[in-house]
Amino acid sequence: MKNELKIFSPATVANVSCGFDVLGFCLDTIGDEMIIRKTTEKGIHITKIVGYDLPFEADKNVAGVSALALYNDAKPNCGFEIEIYKKIKPGSGIGSSSASAAGSVFAINELLGRPYNKTQLINFAMKGEALASGSEHADNIAPAIFGGFTLVRGVSPLEVLQLPTPDDLYVTIIHPQIEVKTSEARAILPKEVELKKAITQWANVGSLVHALHTNDYDLISRSLKDVIVEPYRSKLIPFFNDVKLATNTHALGTGISGSGPSIFALSEGIGKAKKVEQAIRNVYSKTDIAFETYVSKINVQGMKILS
Amino acid sequence: MKNELKIFSPATVANVSCGFDVLGFCLDTIGDEMIIRKTTEKGIHITKIVGYDLPFEADKNVAGVSALALYNDAKPNCGFEIEIYKKIKPGSGIGSSSASAAGSVFAINELLGRPYNKTQLINFAMKGEALASGSEHADNIAPAIFGGFTLVRGVSPLEVLQLPTPDDLYVTIIHPQIEVKTSEARAILPKEVELKKAITQWANVGSLVHALHTNDYDLISRSLKDVIVEPYRSKLIPFFNDVKLATNTHALGTGISGSGPSIFALSEGIGKAKKVEQAIRNVYSKTDIAFETYVSKINVQGMKILS
Repeated sequence: MKNELKIFSPATVANVSCGFDVLGFCLDTIGDEMIIRKTTEKGIHITKIVGYDLPFEADKNVAGVSALALYNDAKPNCGFEIEIYKKIKPGSGIGSSSASAAGSVFAINELLGRPYNKTQLINFAMKGEALASGSEHADNIAPAIFGGFTLVRGVSPLEVLQLPTPDDLYVTIIHPQIEVKTSEARAILPKEVELKKAITQWANVGSLVHALHTNDYDLISRSLKDVIVEPYRSKLIPFFNDVKLATNTHALGTGISGSGPSIFALSEGIGKAKKVEQAIRNVYSKTDIAFETYVSKINVQGMKILS
Repeated sequence: MKNELKIFSPATVANVSCGFDVLGFCLDTIGDEMIIRKTTEKGIHITKIVGYDLPFEADKNVAGVSALALYNDAKPNCGFEIEIYKKIKPGSGIGSSSASAAGSVFAINELLGRPYNKTQLINFAMKGEALASGSEHADNIAPAIFGGFTLVRGVSPLEVLQLPTPDDLYVTIIHPQIEVKTSEARAILPKEVELKKAITQWANVGSLVHALHTNDYDLISRSLKDVIVEPYRSKLIPFFNDVKLATNTHALGTGISGSGPSIFALSEGIGKAKKVEQAIRNVYSKTDIAFETYVSKINVQGMKILS
């Protein structure tokens, strides 16, 4: 059995327009790298953090907290060192904390000979996620661990469904370099919603799941609507409506990634995804906001062992 | 081409617990029969109604109104006589008006050589349904026309998705002989619902659609929850909670059929469906309410031509 693993822990998009709090999917071209090493010294120790300024104390670090949750359950006869090469900017809305939380437990589970299944790993990772966001949720962690599209039917008890992913589905992401606090994005939402709108939303969730099962890109497009959350949260993202308008021609649908500020657009084929990227760049280039864009195939594998 | 058709127009269950206003499925052992006959005399004429006291004037009869909607669009060189053998009691909550509305347009379309597709037929049938319920909705008509499980993604424009139906899925129905007015069942619902509950509901809609695609009976069972509508409407149905409790052992899930008063329970296999029927009969036999029960395989064909 190996004593050290280098892994790729992917960025993810949660909510996916109609599926607020339950749907998510996994990216391929952006994610963190982590090295996890077995040690004779017991405990979880974070020994290196590259990229962003994050706490080294395991119980104050997202990757450390999730690792500790697994570690205290497994009670192995060894310890683990964690090196974090953080590529996903914290607060970007593409699952930065989830990548950290999920990566450490995935790798430790591998090094221990896989005592836990994927759903159990998500349960541990949710402890780390809770440190970052204040509440245990799995809509980013689930696609990071399972890959592809996931539906979190419930968190208590945790139940994650792995949905099929059409072969030629790509996502374009823009990350405007502004801060949207998850707490603010939560606070802006109403506690109650119109029943009529809720019905529209669950019709679209059902349709999207059906569309993923039937490889129906047109239906994916028609289902990617959010009448509940987007009207509120889009106000927190500058030029959201311009981006939506500009991506109209080539994208299947465009929405807020997680609680923002990143925006995602799904497309059929890499050609259209790149045209969508250009359309978004044209919008944001005219503003004074710094931004990054990414194009990625939907990653059906999830976590990857690099070496 | 035939000049006369005898058809079976099936009863249906709308809502299906989590899928309020969007999901429905089709029954096999209960439905109306209708005879539709081409006539040289133009227009739509209802010539016979057996079973229940319903208006003979085409523009005041549900089957007549939907037939007229199709007729006025098709402008054929003939007319049609309609005989209605009404088996589904109006107001039972298993799609009595939908069976009438859908049956006439289905048969006339057949006699005209199928100028319209199923979605177009549903559009015509919705005009008849509107006469009965005051608003155009398709959650009973769609499964009557398509068969199996259907999801109405939207009514304007109308979009109906045909969902797969697991092979061994049966439904048990109890129809307590009491009146629940659709208008009252509508009025009892709140205009707004908690966002948290709406999320639970759309997680279950997504899960149920996934479960139908994957033949996962356990997941069907876990998804058959209604946290939005059932808490209100179940109060209108005597002994609803007793029925739910009694069917717990063998049914995958139990809920209100449409706006009630009928209750449906889905089961894996006819054996369990019959045990569920017995359990329900045991509950209702102790009350002074008259009732009927039915057991049916899910009818994936929908309308049937009998001769």
